[in-house]
Amino acid sequence: MYEKITEYARMLDEKSRARRRDFHKHPEMAWYEMRTSAIIAKTLTELGYDDVLTGKEVCLESARMGVPSEEELQAHAREAIAWGAPEEYLTDEMKEGYTGVIGILHCGEGPVVALRFDIDCLGMREDATTEHRPYREGFASEHLGWMHACGHDGHATIGLGVAEVLMKMRDQIHGTVKLIFQPGEEGGKGARAIVAHGHLDDVDYFIGTHVAPSGGPDDGDLTPGTWGSLANWKYDVHFYGKAAHAGGFPEKGCNAIVAAANAVLNLYAIPRHSDGITRVNVGVIEGGTGRNVIPDHAVLQMEVRGATTEINSYMDEQAKRICQAAADIAGCRCEMVLQGGGESQQSDEDFLAYIGNLVREQMPDLKVSSCENAQNWGSEDISLMMNRVQEHGGKATYMRSVTDMASAQHTTAFDFDEKVLVDAIRVFSLIVCDLLK
Amino acid sequence: MYEKITEYARMLDEKSRARRRDFHKHPEMAWYEMRTSAIIAKTLTELGYDDVLTGKEVCLESARMGVPSEEELQAHAREAIAWGAPEEYLTDEMKEGYTGVIGILHCGEGPVVALRFDIDCLGMREDATTEHRPYREGFASEHLGWMHACGHDGHATIGLGVAEVLMKMRDQIHGTVKLIFQPGEEGGKGARAIVAHGHLDDVDYFIGTHVAPSGGPDDGDLTPGTWGSLANWKYDVHFYGKAAHAGGFPEKGCNAIVAAANAVLNLYAIPRHSDGITRVNVGVIEGGTGRNVIPDHAVLQMEVRGATTEINSYMDEQAKRICQAAADIAGCRCEMVLQGGGESQQSDEDFLAYIGNLVREQMPDLKVSSCENAQNWGSEDISLMMNRVQEHGGKATYMRSVTDMASAQHTTAFDFDEKVLVDAIRVFSLIVCDLLK
Amino acid sequence: MYEKITEYARMLDEKSRARRRDFHKHPEMAWYEMRTSAIIAKTLTELGYDDVLTGKEVCLESARMGVPSEEELQAHAREAIAWGAPEEYLTDEMKEGYTGVIGILHCGEGPVVALRFDIDCLGMREDATTEHRPYREGFASEHLGWMHACGHDGHATIGLGVAEVLMKMRDQIHGTVKLIFQPGEEGGKGARAIVAHGHLDDVDYFIGTHVAPSGGPDDGDLTPGTWGSLANWKYDVHFYGKAAHAGGFPEKGCNAIVAAANAVLNLYAIPRHSDGITRVNVGVIEGGTGRNVIPDHAVLQMEVRGATTEINSYMDEQAKRICQAAADIAGCRCEMVLQGGGESQQSDEDFLAYIGNLVREQMPDLKVSSCENAQNWGSEDISLMMNRVQEHGGKATYMRSVTDMASAQHTTAFDFDEKVLVDAIRVFSLIVCDLLK
Amino acid sequence: MYEKITEYARMLDEKSRARRRDFHKHPEMAWYEMRTSAIIAKTLTELGYDDVLTGKEVCLESARMGVPSEEELQAHAREAIAWGAPEEYLTDEMKEGYTGVIGILHCGEGPVVALRFDIDCLGMREDATTEHRPYREGFASEHLGWMHACGHDGHATIGLGVAEVLMKMRDQIHGTVKLIFQPGEEGGKGARAIVAHGHLDDVDYFIGTHVAPSGGPDDGDLTPGTWGSLANWKYDVHFYGKAAHAGGFPEKGCNAIVAAANAVLNLYAIPRHSDGITRVNVGVIEGGTGRNVIPDHAVLQMEVRGATTEINSYMDEQAKRICQAAADIAGCRCEMVLQGGGESQQSDEDFLAYIGNLVREQMPDLKVSSCENAQNWGSEDISLMMNRVQEHGGKATYMRSVTDMASAQHTTAFDFDEKVLVDAIRVFSLIVCDLLK
Repeated sequence: MYEKITEYARMLDEKSRARRRDFHKHPEMAWYEMRTSAIIAKTLTELGYDDVLTGKEVCLESARMGVPSEEELQAHAREAIAWGAPEEYLTDEMKEGYTGVIGILHCGEGPVVALRFDIDCLGMREDATTEHRPYREGFASEHLGWMHACGHDGHATIGLGVAEVLMKMRDQIHGTVKLIFQPGEEGGKGARAIVAHGHLDDVDYFIGTHVAPSGGPDDGDLTPGTWGSLANWKYDVHFYGKAAHAGGFPEKGCNAIVAAANAVLNLYAIPRHSDGITRVNVGVIEGGTGRNVIPDHAVLQMEVRGATTEINSYMDEQAKRICQAAADIAGCRCEMVLQGGGESQQSDEDFLAYIGNLVREQMPDLKVSSCENAQNWGSEDISLMMNRVQEHGGKATYMRSVTDMASAQHTTAFDFDEKVLVDAIRVFSLIVCDLLK
Repeated sequence: MYEKITEYARMLDEKSRARRRDFHKHPEMAWYEMRTSAIIAKTLTELGYDDVLTGKEVCLESARMGVPSEEELQAHAREAIAWGAPEEYLTDEMKEGYTGVIGILHCGEGPVVALRFDIDCLGMREDATTEHRPYREGFASEHLGWMHACGHDGHATIGLGVAEVLMKMRDQIHGTVKLIFQPGEEGGKGARAIVAHGHLDDVDYFIGTHVAPSGGPDDGDLTPGTWGSLANWKYDVHFYGKAAHAGGFPEKGCNAIVAAANAVLNLYAIPRHSDGITRVNVGVIEGGTGRNVIPDHAVLQMEVRGATTEINSYMDEQAKRICQAAADIAGCRCEMVLQGGGESQQSDEDFLAYIGNLVREQMPDLKVSSCENAQNWGSEDISLMMNRVQEHGGKATYMRSVTDMASAQHTTAFDFDEKVLVDAIRVFSLIVCDLLK
Repeated sequence: MYEKITEYARMLDEKSRARRRDFHKHPEMAWYEMRTSAIIAKTLTELGYDDVLTGKEVCLESARMGVPSEEELQAHAREAIAWGAPEEYLTDEMKEGYTGVIGILHCGEGPVVALRFDIDCLGMREDATTEHRPYREGFASEHLGWMHACGHDGHATIGLGVAEVLMKMRDQIHGTVKLIFQPGEEGGKGARAIVAHGHLDDVDYFIGTHVAPSGGPDDGDLTPGTWGSLANWKYDVHFYGKAAHAGGFPEKGCNAIVAAANAVLNLYAIPRHSDGITRVNVGVIEGGTGRNVIPDHAVLQMEVRGATTEINSYMDEQAKRICQAAADIAGCRCEMVLQGGGESQQSDEDFLAYIGNLVREQMPDLKVSSCENAQNWGSEDISLMMNRVQEHGGKATYMRSVTDMASAQHTTAFDFDEKVLVDAIRVFSLIVCDLLK
Repeated sequence: MYEKITEYARMLDEKSRARRRDFHKHPEMAWYEMRTSAIIAKTLTELGYDDVLTGKEVCLESARMGVPSEEELQAHAREAIAWGAPEEYLTDEMKEGYTGVIGILHCGEGPVVALRFDIDCLGMREDATTEHRPYREGFASEHLGWMHACGHDGHATIGLGVAEVLMKMRDQIHGTVKLIFQPGEEGGKGARAIVAHGHLDDVDYFIGTHVAPSGGPDDGDLTPGTWGSLANWKYDVHFYGKAAHAGGFPEKGCNAIVAAANAVLNLYAIPRHSDGITRVNVGVIEGGTGRNVIPDHAVLQMEVRGATTEINSYMDEQAKRICQAAADIAGCRCEMVLQGGGESQQSDEDFLAYIGNLVREQMPDLKVSSCENAQNWGSEDISLMMNRVQEHGGKATYMRSVTDMASAQHTTAFDFDEKVLVDAIRVFSLIVCDLLK
């Protein structure tokens, strides 16, 4: 019955590979996804989607976190145009950092199904050796320091493929389909603003996925659900002190780097929690202006995580107290600017069982893994969407689309086997069609 | 007898003010002083100096420290040209970071007198408010993040003024004059390479100066000598660890920021020394690549100082042990790259007394201060030149040219009263003429 | 069939309560259990046990850890005598810290069953308020700073009760019974030395217990097994530096307290492990000799723990590297003296199921809890005995004997409802008789 | 004219050596100087001093710092009696820690001269090898952990010798003599309470001394004045946290050792001061109750010093802020209990010149050193007395009585050549007689 889905999806193979490589070559970090959003909006519009929401229709203005300065956004807007962004779809709001697109298909009475695809890249410098296929084959990042090292170029591509297949299946669909192309997943910046807008409030079934490495010989092509991603808060912690000539008047300064160093050591030393996993990291530090000047500013990019939202709150309170006191110790002032965050999540067991059975039956060429060990120690702001859907009785799952990878995610030599694109398009389309049949 | 000197110097007033503002507008950091060097070389050549040494004739190749990368130098070479550097004097060696110029006047038998003028700027972002005269009057830095905040624009100007006056006095001079325009004083990078080349080996009298703020109502226009500047070593301290996903595998990383934080706290905690003053500063820190990645690299810009070369060695040994152990504590590797350094110095008492008397007698309009309290807690690599001269029996002094300042040295609103330019030109010229009369 | 056991045990009620109070009043820390051992040896001998091992027959000399100095042991030997220890059983070896007793019953062919009872107290100062029953009723500790705050006074009492009941049941027993009265459980000091002696090598069934607080209304009187206690290593970490007059010659010292402070912060900051729980604690610090002297010695009482022996090894390696580097940072020397340790353990599921069923059937007045949540985050060196038994195919379990407690274990107001004594005597006796029937 | 003084003093040689050895054998720490005070009071009374002040007549009750507990004082009172303290002079107030004695001689009209002799010992364990003369000859400390390692046994002896000589010279004296035997010099505890009582308010000439090692071949027998001893504050810094089981509930504790460790590192890292010397030391640390318990208390014995009272205030403010913030960083509470302190001092130049000339002239066998380099980097609460005298126009000096030493002061093998006793008695007596002639 669903053979057509596979047929349509396979027709998109070459197009998807090309599309993914185009995204890969033009990566865009959180709130900078202007070219990506414009292309998605153009594609959905041309496919004939009933609604194509962009700009402030997608993210609630007051709920965005970690938005770059206007100057930085304008500078990239010019780059996006230079990269051939379709200018008629590159709206002023996008240029102001209101990125992300939601495509909606209204197919009469029936449940609401939402799919989520994240589209942003990471702030990493892509490997420039011939070992690295994107470099070798000419689709490595054209923006030094930005890179699709997590596979969101694939996710955006899968989303557009699903959009195309569902359009062809439209007359067999009864209900509503929302395709959410989310900005700013890295750092947990974007989902919050989409949830705050209310886009998840009427959703009955919610599905997301991430490309994932094969974990061993028993691993299949699809894990229909995962559980446990860590709740987290991400902060930029600023320490403001007082500069002085280090040789001439050492006693006159308030040393922001000393404050930061105290914070670093004590953040890592936050006591473990007996109720479950905790994490803390200071990933980036920067401070000072000159070797012989008592530094008057330092900033940490920091995050805390916990197995549950409660444990994360414990970490959060400790971190806040420590940063404040570390500032005091050096006579400095501390300011913590929230940059993002997520909650813990749990895929619905009956929903993922249904998906597993459906795929096993309808697409027997795909191997479905057990979810037993599909624990996730990372953090994903999809948790915010899942929790909102589950709160009002909807079902949610976060799947793994398994594929081979050249190097681990978040490394500079990351690349993945693009055959996963068509398979994921098939799976998403199948589930939507079956839920809304 | 020396009225001519004052007359010639005063004729240079307007020219000197303009020249200083041109240098101020086009500041160049250590080893980047390409435009400045080209202008100096052109000026000295056109004045008719017997020798005008540039490039590798000035600094010994193997003794330069903290040289930027070739790419960085090339990029600034383009900027220097855009800024109107005289291209016929902008040599290829200058473009490779061999900056600095030495102008020599051979006037027969007699002693060798060397004057030193430092020409580099600081890595600071100049104040851009109308309170700040350079901004208000249009001669603020055109390179964001580079600024003449220490007055070396004035020093270079004084040097060129002296060059012009001495040329006019040439027939009354008996001996040799070396005008050393030194690159890279900030961070103690340049003097070492000039000394290593041997330029100080035959010098009988050596004089340097720094513009200095008035210290009170009793302060005059000139302090003929200072003593005690701190011996120092400057390092970039690199910590190399191992990256890992901070949420997924915290135990797999070796945290370079933790190593750096331990180093910071323990460097400041190096015990005081009973024999005299010590200083230590970590002025700049930078590390890590992403918030959720165990950081695999961090770097400190650090310096130690001591009242004497021996005390400085104590600080140096402690710092080395601490940085190494701080790396170990986090399972990291430490590499300390020497960036510069200086020794302690002592102006010769008889030489500065001679200068004081000479100026009092010949230029009674200039008020000469006592040197009793002219202690100097900063560090200056002129010490290397002075010590070399004194080692072989020469006399050396490091004077203060006192003037009003809008804000302290090494601050973003620094500016000084340019009337000091002509006065300093007079004093230098007077001393040279009297020594070589 | 086993009614006699209950009958015999109940006859010991009053005697057991009195015995426990006598032990409570005369607590003895690790390797000091001289009076306790002498009383146990006397009791077992008088009961007619076939072998009563004491002194070096119990603990292997080379495997004891954390043994006090000879002076300290001699001082307590005098106290033990003053406390009325039976002098004919207080052997010279006991006075040298070879405490602990093993009573053996040889009853012909059959399996070997070993029971373990720990007998040492904690280094705490017992509550001296009338709120506290032991104080109110006159059986509080007579040694200031030593206290049975964990219930081992009860464990020793249970062991002696079991000894008496089994003697009466002797003719129905077929096999060998070993009653192990272990010294030095606190700090993980004693089990290792008994295992090293080979006493567990021939054991087929091994059972230990700990009095435990009721965890809620569903909790019964007995949990037949537990799992997961944390593997751990305990060290005294000594830092040796160099003293100097802090005012006169601060640069001449090597500061052992600075070394220790660095160790403290970095030990707590050891990264979490993705495979499971870790713990670290610096429970005690001591250092220095005078306010104005650079401290030349400091010592930490420290421990690391891990969910598994592997994770504990990770913690151990990190801790060793950190302590060494923390010493280096201050120019000190580090010496880590192992004080104790344990492994993780797992009660055998079939064995505890057998026990659960046996008790439910034969002693229906005792409520048996499920072991599902009988997870144990503490550390117990019984793990070493259990692992040795399980290694050669024996069965082992570590039970909880549930009772009401006046205050948490390891607090100064700890006390427990003594009715647990008779119940535990019944359970142990029942299991032994059934295993060897 | 003053030959008698020398004659009388020399008659005291043997007696003084014996007296010093008696004090050495029975050392008493701050506020414990009961036997010492009783002996002094007895001696002065028997000599016929007009007033012999003891107990609360000496130290102002509210101004004593660092007083031991009543139990500790009582325990030593028993020891003092066992050591043969003259019981009729051992008052109840002395037993409560009101130690110290002032002997006054009223000799009609004339200036008031005060001499100060400190009498307390240090908390050190005396060397017990035959290398050490006090041990070899049987006058080593009889109190394990207390030791006259600074020479105050000699100072007390000198004071009693001066008392005897002056009594013989009484009819040639015109004015008032105060002999102040001060308790608690170590740690700066006692002088404050004597000053607060007003004993220095009417003093015209004030003289103190310390036995001192010979600093080289040019060093004489006497340095008539010193300058510059460091101002200082001494604190016990308590951190109060919350205990918790380190394995079971690490998140429930507030770790006082972590607070203390942060304080230690940051105290040593207090920035140097450009105006002069600073010092900081954490000489002793103690904390925690058990290896597996989150420590709920830790205490530091700490001190800060500065070249001037102002610089010391800078150190004090920094230390207070750091200790408070270090407590906050670990969620603890901080309490700083002042234990003592002193100011910087300056001997009057005209007064010490007068003394130098007087001794040179009247006792030519004594070699008088120049005071030029008599800088003192230690701390002495005699500064409080000197400053009070100088405030109202009196003259004050702090002399060095030079002698050979077996080992440095404040070391366990300290001993000195007792010939200094008679010489110092001569010098003090001479000055008093000459001032009041």
